[in-house]
Amino acid sequence: MKYCSQCGKPVSQKVPEGDNRLRYVCDECEHIHYQNPRIIAGCLPILEEKVLLCKRAIEPRAGYWTLPAGFLENGETTAMGALRETREEANANVEIIDIYTMFSLPHISQVYLFYRARLIDTDFSAGVESTDVRLFSEHEIPWDQLAFPVITQTLRHFFSDRGSDTFPVRSLDIIVDRNRKPLA
Amino acid sequence: MKYCSQCGKPVSQKVPEGDNRLRYVCDECEHIHYQNPRIIAGCLPILEEKVLLCKRAIEPRAGYWTLPAGFLENGETTAMGALRETREEANANVEIIDIYTMFSLPHISQVYLFYRARLIDTDFSAGVESTDVRLFSEHEIPWDQLAFPVITQTLRHFFSDRGSDTFPVRSLDIIVDRNRKPLA
Repeated sequence: MKYCSQCGKPVSQKVPEGDNRLRYVCDECEHIHYQNPRIIAGCLPILEEKVLLCKRAIEPRAGYWTLPAGFLENGETTAMGALRETREEANANVEIIDIYTMFSLPHISQVYLFYRARLIDTDFSAGVESTDVRLFSEHEIPWDQLAFPVITQTLRHFFSDRGSDTFPVRSLDIIVDRNRKPLA
Repeated sequence: MKYCSQCGKPVSQKVPEGDNRLRYVCDECEHIHYQNPRIIAGCLPILEEKVLLCKRAIEPRAGYWTLPAGFLENGETTAMGALRETREEANANVEIIDIYTMFSLPHISQVYLFYRARLIDTDFSAGVESTDVRLFSEHEIPWDQLAFPVITQTLRHFFSDRGSDTFPVRSLDIIVDRNRKPLA
């Protein structure tokens, strides 16, 4: 952020009075521009013993498999966002069962929310952000080709919880040290 | 939003290619400025049969009672945000038990998350955004002086669930018709 979205003049980073964090503040009109984490809402679509995964057409992680999910939009509930993304990425008709996993990813200021959802029919197909959409039973899951840790963890919990048919909501954190030096 | 935060030139509302929503797009550099819902994280601090409430020093709803909660900051997990707000608003030492309620408020593009939390000691006091902080047992709760529906619903669920000592996570929506005409 370099310019004030209210008046177009340059902004500087400073700690506003009564605050304790650096914010972008307009040098001219003094408007404070807060920046906050974003929510990614998605579904775990379930049909009998199978789950629906989408092969990503876009970066990051193009070619890897994911659950349908995307940024929550203003004016949506989290469930509405999860349903919309499932329709957009997999053209799939689902019915929300309940919230299932919630992940904080503080290194990228994101919060993921996945709902368990019942796939209503097999009339699904790849949306523009997917190259393929398929149903997988547990032993068919391409574990080494999943797009993100939140996908792996949500699927692992699901197949584990399915044994007892109880699906407690899980609030989990994925902590990544961005300052870690890569191995030589 | 009137100006581009990247280059300072005016923005217009248009639907970007491949999108289906109006966004603020820079007339000059074509940067797309997405706007997304914000997360408010908080705690339901519990000590024996009592819960901790804060009397709001600030608008909206100054003078009404609330649970300690506030906007999640970049770089925080949802639990870290809930703990920070509890410290800032009530100077209270709590230990997170588990996520408890999640509310979507689409009319204001907010998502609330409340954690059940154990109050570790009674060394609490009003922070700058509170005028009073007190422990309330169920029959002492000022139900008609609670600040927001999310507070009322979280407390009602808690006192109800306490009977069975099971606290299922609840994902709830608060739908408000902003276009409703007030009664004459």
